[in-house]
Amino acid sequence: MTIERIWTASLLVIGDEILSGRTQDRNVSPIATWLNVQGIRLAEVRVVPDDSERIGEAVKALRDRYDYLFTTGGIGPTHDDITVDAIAAALGVPVVVHPRARAALEAHYAGRGGVTEARLRMARVPEGADLIENPASGAPGIRVGNIFILAGIPQVAAMMLEALSGTLEGGRPLLSSTVGCWAPESEVAELLADTERSHPGCQIGSYPFFREGRGGANFVIRSPDAARLEACRADLVERLEAEGRAVVAEGI
Amino acid sequence: MTIERIWTASLLVIGDEILSGRTQDRNVSPIATWLNVQGIRLAEVRVVPDDSERIGEAVKALRDRYDYLFTTGGIGPTHDDITVDAIAAALGVPVVVHPRARAALEAHYAGRGGVTEARLRMARVPEGADLIENPASGAPGIRVGNIFILAGIPQVAAMMLEALSGTLEGGRPLLSSTVGCWAPESEVAELLADTERSHPGCQIGSYPFFREGRGGANFVIRSPDAARLEACRADLVERLEAEGRAVVAEGI
Repeated sequence: MTIERIWTASLLVIGDEILSGRTQDRNVSPIATWLNVQGIRLAEVRVVPDDSERIGEAVKALRDRYDYLFTTGGIGPTHDDITVDAIAAALGVPVVVHPRARAALEAHYAGRGGVTEARLRMARVPEGADLIENPASGAPGIRVGNIFILAGIPQVAAMMLEALSGTLEGGRPLLSSTVGCWAPESEVAELLADTERSHPGCQIGSYPFFREGRGGANFVIRSPDAARLEACRADLVERLEAEGRAVVAEGI
Repeated sequence: MTIERIWTASLLVIGDEILSGRTQDRNVSPIATWLNVQGIRLAEVRVVPDDSERIGEAVKALRDRYDYLFTTGGIGPTHDDITVDAIAAALGVPVVVHPRARAALEAHYAGRGGVTEARLRMARVPEGADLIENPASGAPGIRVGNIFILAGIPQVAAMMLEALSGTLEGGRPLLSSTVGCWAPESEVAELLADTERSHPGCQIGSYPFFREGRGGANFVIRSPDAARLEACRADLVERLEAEGRAVVAEGI
């Protein structure tokens, strides 16, 4: 038996606007989903303010602990965009203008006023960094070591991920299967725990809801192994039906 | 001149379902907004998996660093609800059944099958904890020291917050004012930085968007001082209009 290597990532969301409550984060869920397709598990998320020290501290902690670190936010042209400087400082390297990023900005802003000093900020990278090109804007994402610096605007971040698809080493994706049940989870808690114990390599999460006056729950089974996942799912459905519970095969 | 005490909080989101990408978090933004009304700044968010050690580690780091720590998720009746045990272990105290929580569950489940072993799990608290009562379910939230343990279901978490309103010591809320502008932020970057520099105690964040083929940005000014905020806002609008920019007073 070989021990399976599990690849992990963390995500650092940089943004006063998330912490103030003004903006609902829209990056965590799609990045988590994308990572899983690459065979990488999102193992931690942190949200910190637009503050160099706090960004640097989180970057140092997270890049050492996980295989990959992704960041979102703070790479635009304005004074509050400090991600590149904060990460360079954390890595102990200077900030330089990347020649290809500069060329991309020049192409993008040709006929739109050209590359101003503010726009040139978007070509600055920590020394030694590579670009994550994307068609959405002149400003590319940045890769430096195991750190991937993405835009905060979800549509732009998504295009940067698209450009990275298939380029990162990963393992087997975590598969999942959902079983819905019109029963309060407290009535099937023991059944769930017993089922999980009978299926090593599978985890069952229980996510209750109340809808139209009725209580129910979705049970999400997760495993990297498709056969084990299916065996656990079938067993769970059988046990629930044996108790006379109303089961919805694909979740509710 | 007195130095103003700033009260801070952190939020620990406990949930494999967030990290897998399956579920979009719906607690961070309302909790951030609620905290600000209490005069408390949300200074950090972490999302960790349903894993005792990872929860305990984050709890220890965050409760020492900030005035308050809130957690969401993992306090239901099923085997994957391990928040109470993980926090008690981190604090080095045993888990006990809280008599008033037990009584609340008995009242809630009278005529609905009574308090089973699974349901009684929801009356378990770290020793020395108080309850955060709420009308939504038999299961209360939990306060232990500066840690507030809330449900993961947003509607239930919101009712627990409602019960806590006005009970936590805080300072002045951070006020904000938004100015929208139909200009790419890169064209007004210097203007923004100059305006911020002219108004100590105010911060200006720039949040770009692309809509209907046009680029624009919202500039969010933040300050705990209403007079300074208004002076900064008025100055920003004047500077933008002096450049002939199309300004939308309440943001776009």
